[in-house]
Amino acid sequence: MRPSGRAPDELRTIRITRQFTKHAEGSVLVEFGDTRVLCTASVEERVPPFLKGKGQGWITAEYGMLPRATHTRSPREAAKGKQSGRSMEIQRLIGRALRATVDLEALGERSITLDCDVLQADGGTRTAAITGSFVALADAVRTLLERRALKKNPLHGQVASVSVGICKGVPVLDLDYAEDADAETDMNVVMNDAGAFIEIQGTAEGHAFRQDELDALLALARGGIASLLDKQREALGLGR
Amino acid sequence: MRPSGRAPDELRTIRITRQFTKHAEGSVLVEFGDTRVLCTASVEERVPPFLKGKGQGWITAEYGMLPRATHTRSPREAAKGKQSGRSMEIQRLIGRALRATVDLEALGERSITLDCDVLQADGGTRTAAITGSFVALADAVRTLLERRALKKNPLHGQVASVSVGICKGVPVLDLDYAEDADAETDMNVVMNDAGAFIEIQGTAEGHAFRQDELDALLALARGGIASLLDKQREALGLGR
Amino acid sequence: MRPSGRAPDELRTIRITRQFTKHAEGSVLVEFGDTRVLCTASVEERVPPFLKGKGQGWITAEYGMLPRATHTRSPREAAKGKQSGRSMEIQRLIGRALRATVDLEALGERSITLDCDVLQADGGTRTAAITGSFVALADAVRTLLERRALKKNPLHGQVASVSVGICKGVPVLDLDYAEDADAETDMNVVMNDAGAFIEIQGTAEGHAFRQDELDALLALARGGIASLLDKQREALGLGR
Amino acid sequence: MRPSGRAPDELRTIRITRQFTKHAEGSVLVEFGDTRVLCTASVEERVPPFLKGKGQGWITAEYGMLPRATHTRSPREAAKGKQSGRSMEIQRLIGRALRATVDLEALGERSITLDCDVLQADGGTRTAAITGSFVALADAVRTLLERRALKKNPLHGQVASVSVGICKGVPVLDLDYAEDADAETDMNVVMNDAGAFIEIQGTAEGHAFRQDELDALLALARGGIASLLDKQREALGLGR
Amino acid sequence: MRPSGRAPDELRTIRITRQFTKHAEGSVLVEFGDTRVLCTASVEERVPPFLKGKGQGWITAEYGMLPRATHTRSPREAAKGKQSGRSMEIQRLIGRALRATVDLEALGERSITLDCDVLQADGGTRTAAITGSFVALADAVRTLLERRALKKNPLHGQVASVSVGICKGVPVLDLDYAEDADAETDMNVVMNDAGAFIEIQGTAEGHAFRQDELDALLALARGGIASLLDKQREALGLGR
Amino acid sequence: MRPSGRAPDELRTIRITRQFTKHAEGSVLVEFGDTRVLCTASVEERVPPFLKGKGQGWITAEYGMLPRATHTRSPREAAKGKQSGRSMEIQRLIGRALRATVDLEALGERSITLDCDVLQADGGTRTAAITGSFVALADAVRTLLERRALKKNPLHGQVASVSVGICKGVPVLDLDYAEDADAETDMNVVMNDAGAFIEIQGTAEGHAFRQDELDALLALARGGIASLLDKQREALGLGR
Repeated sequence: MRPSGRAPDELRTIRITRQFTKHAEGSVLVEFGDTRVLCTASVEERVPPFLKGKGQGWITAEYGMLPRATHTRSPREAAKGKQSGRSMEIQRLIGRALRATVDLEALGERSITLDCDVLQADGGTRTAAITGSFVALADAVRTLLERRALKKNPLHGQVASVSVGICKGVPVLDLDYAEDADAETDMNVVMNDAGAFIEIQGTAEGHAFRQDELDALLALARGGIASLLDKQREALGLGR
Repeated sequence: MRPSGRAPDELRTIRITRQFTKHAEGSVLVEFGDTRVLCTASVEERVPPFLKGKGQGWITAEYGMLPRATHTRSPREAAKGKQSGRSMEIQRLIGRALRATVDLEALGERSITLDCDVLQADGGTRTAAITGSFVALADAVRTLLERRALKKNPLHGQVASVSVGICKGVPVLDLDYAEDADAETDMNVVMNDAGAFIEIQGTAEGHAFRQDELDALLALARGGIASLLDKQREALGLGR
Repeated sequence: MRPSGRAPDELRTIRITRQFTKHAEGSVLVEFGDTRVLCTASVEERVPPFLKGKGQGWITAEYGMLPRATHTRSPREAAKGKQSGRSMEIQRLIGRALRATVDLEALGERSITLDCDVLQADGGTRTAAITGSFVALADAVRTLLERRALKKNPLHGQVASVSVGICKGVPVLDLDYAEDADAETDMNVVMNDAGAFIEIQGTAEGHAFRQDELDALLALARGGIASLLDKQREALGLGR
Repeated sequence: MRPSGRAPDELRTIRITRQFTKHAEGSVLVEFGDTRVLCTASVEERVPPFLKGKGQGWITAEYGMLPRATHTRSPREAAKGKQSGRSMEIQRLIGRALRATVDLEALGERSITLDCDVLQADGGTRTAAITGSFVALADAVRTLLERRALKKNPLHGQVASVSVGICKGVPVLDLDYAEDADAETDMNVVMNDAGAFIEIQGTAEGHAFRQDELDALLALARGGIASLLDKQREALGLGR
Repeated sequence: MRPSGRAPDELRTIRITRQFTKHAEGSVLVEFGDTRVLCTASVEERVPPFLKGKGQGWITAEYGMLPRATHTRSPREAAKGKQSGRSMEIQRLIGRALRATVDLEALGERSITLDCDVLQADGGTRTAAITGSFVALADAVRTLLERRALKKNPLHGQVASVSVGICKGVPVLDLDYAEDADAETDMNVVMNDAGAFIEIQGTAEGHAFRQDELDALLALARGGIASLLDKQREALGLGR
Repeated sequence: MRPSGRAPDELRTIRITRQFTKHAEGSVLVEFGDTRVLCTASVEERVPPFLKGKGQGWITAEYGMLPRATHTRSPREAAKGKQSGRSMEIQRLIGRALRATVDLEALGERSITLDCDVLQADGGTRTAAITGSFVALADAVRTLLERRALKKNPLHGQVASVSVGICKGVPVLDLDYAEDADAETDMNVVMNDAGAFIEIQGTAEGHAFRQDELDALLALARGGIASLLDKQREALGLGR
């Protein structure tokens, strides 16, 4: 029995709210149960120095948690004067995941930054951030298409992410904080809508996992991500 | 005529939503029109070093804006490695304003940190932050009273804040971004529920202001703050 | 009775020494009693990035205290690796105050930086810094006029500042450290030579202030600033 | 044909040199072909604050590259004032990998820090660092056992790591820089000597990977890691 | 002929003003011609962590230049977020020089920090800082002796410093900025009142120096330092 | 008797290994006994901002110690977020020493950075770094000559460095850590192959040194440096 009463292959309630704030080209509040992440997509008509003059665009991400998104208050990273290793690792993952679905040449010499700010944390903030950021990115791309700044759609698919893990010996989908804290194995999986893997990050916490456990986890992830891709299409008003 | 169509002495629509997030002892989303600030109050059972062993508590505040709370994206302060002078100035103001309403000895040797994070900015973020933080602080104090961690209520009144300014020669209340950007004079006023001033910060932007203009601005502020104090009581379920 | 034996409306001894150091375009040692601030004005033939190509100049200020300007040694900000919130707040105030008296277009595409370094602190360092910086700025402008780098004088008036406060229930002018430390209300007022306000920053420290107290404080400030403006003219060799 | 002429399942020449420097409790130069990483293990008789008084030890890692370990010089992280996100991500991985093989309670209240400094980089620095650090850690533990500071061996197995990837459509083992730079998929695998996974980090670079590709990559990794575990035992003078 | 018209072995006008500011235990304005450095000595009843419980005290120094102490404005180190290598090198030198004249055990478990802040720079700031700091230190020690916080005088001699260099082929004493900027060799010498060397730092700038040139420079330094030691005794009211 | 059994004028075993790593234009492992420093020379086709357009090149150095190069682990400077004063002082010295032997105009508008990373420390790391860096620099210059990027050799001589000191009253050459730690006087000397001084840095540690002691130390240094210059020529395949 999971702490939340869910079945092993059951996602939390997923909500994707577009246009959550008004200034950004894409602004999505994504909720995986009690985990709530605000993902905004900001278009800027310039690229980082290493891409200048190369005829392509860039997608990047930044991640942060509000100090009291968690059970106990964490120090504000801006006040400490640096981002934690954890924040950097997560924002690098989000950026890679989204770039995997974009034709950067079709984007032209512009950047889209995905800001993923966790308003409330209850496990799985990085997977929610990737899933919500895709929708914010899609909205930003729509804005550019409507402004006729883009000739063709640079998105060549969808990307979504979910966590899986082994808790008390049982492979489960979409861990909340209570499960995450004592999972023996924790894995974040990013897939596209062709059913292929973009990223797999699996970590044994106290119990190394066997090939058969890995296979079970990946199967769970595949099912969860299929549902998340549906939710994204629904939010974007696209048919399934 | 104001850009928003409001009368000179008219506040924007004010909304105060308690328990906006679940972990903090107090969590309030405050909205002054399109300005939205999440204010959380976090109780910690320790005081800063300069207060150790002095038998009193501490109230402090931190302020941040999400990178895309504004029209164009601002760099993330955590990634830049420091808070801006503006952020520091605002968080110092919020802390002073709230301390003015608390009996720090009655609070005991504990700290309450008010985190004010701007989700969407449309002018007046600091005044919204003060007004919302008071409600978050009141909720945190209630939690402590319910836990019997406090013997008496350390709050000896309410505090709220509003901006006033002179736009096109006319004194107006609660400026939004469009007004703020070309106000000749900009003033933030903090008052308590006894009708006395906690803080006045008035700045001439291109037009020094006379005593009679100051008087008109303070009269406007007084009226606006009276309404905000009502909104706070209403949100807290207190009679007027 | 004030600790210094002064009458409530009496300034400390004010001294303004020009050309205190030799390299700067303007260099003023300003003394408000035992408070001594070295204000230098440095002209640079460039503007900050946000003003490039806009056909106007910029005035900015930086503030610092020598580590042993105070009763006990404060850590050196350069060694700590950042300026305190207090320093940033003060230097932003000084910059705004001086910009209020300058026609930035007439200044041309150049910057003048006012460095205000406190050699000895005894209360009122920011008001002394503003008052002295105006004289340093006037000297820098004179230098530019003499070099024929400027066609017309970009200064359209004078600016000076003084603190006022309520100590033991009595409104007093120009607080020294002993008064500042236990004032119930503390206010810094910046005015121009037309008798209008540039900036008002009033803070209740433990006692919120009423409208009549505010009025009494502003009247005191008005008198003090009139004397300071005279001192500036005298130092600059201008008739009253 | 691979750039190096190796077969798809062929490791580079692996060398593990113990006691490379004299001060550290464990000091290993590990070479995966031209990739050379110096791994030192330092014992300190204290634990980080979050573990104080909990009766257990800690294993952590830090990773750095000498500025000219690479084809073109990278700025020195110490001079830039911060570690890159990449460095932080790698050192977190190394730390997790090694902790998976240690009984932290048996270690007692002490820390072992693995410093992994890349003298020369040619792809696979993080996998070399993990593989070499295990040997340095084993030497540090031996030192503690010889000093009778430990009653029982806290190591409950071996850990090693290798990279695998898909280059020009072919799954290959232990990528060097030339392959790494244009791999379609890149995966780092950490396993223990029981044949179970400690960590899998797979990233699609331009080509999302299918389940069958994943399986092929993991099979290659399993073979490579078996050889690396042998090399570790050999270096440590243990029978196979 | 030297730019200043001085003879090769002639010091600039030396002035040592004690009690320049009022809060510090020792406060000295030292002038070597137009070079002016404010040296304050601050006593604190604690020692740095590495000396705790060792029954001895500590002497340390910090050095800074006001931004417009020089011909063109230098960025404020506090605003840049770090001290320059030059500042650190100089303050380490000042600290070593003063420690060479103090019996740290006789000082007891307390620290004296010498803050050397350059108000105006015209060459030789570090040698002026050492020479002035000794007097500030002597005043701080007197204060401690008068308060009976010390049983015996921990100073076992005097220390002073001067620069020497080779300009246009001629060895000269106490270089000002004009000479310093095109000296072929530049040397800072610190000596005690027993005529022995505390520190020698000689640098060839474009012309390596021979043994006979070194000897000539050291002879010049010896003469200059003898005069500086006299000036110190005079300032302190001690007989020659 | 010296702890190492060496005669007072005896260097440690000196080893200079070229091409220690493969990417750098010059890469030298220099060993002074157990002190081992990796010195790499990196050519970059640009100069620092202050030299742009001046028709000359630049030589600079950076210095670092691996955390466990020493008896006890030192915190990693990259993780602390800044270089120590000691590191900055040493890298400034190395840069000055090498620039003294280079015709910067003949180098053209390019930079050569010497990275000196201490793999193992046993005293004298800065003198080993200078001595080894010269060889790395010579190799980088050869590379540029071979590529015909330079018309003439910008090196106009050799530079090498050694430490000398007074231990138990006896002047000795090339101190190892055991001697360094309790030397009464410690001096680093840099000379060129014309027998002239580039830099002398002598510091009394607890015992000020007399002129005759200085002379004895410099004589020892002269002999040691002559041997080091021979070792450099030998390593570079040049006749003596």
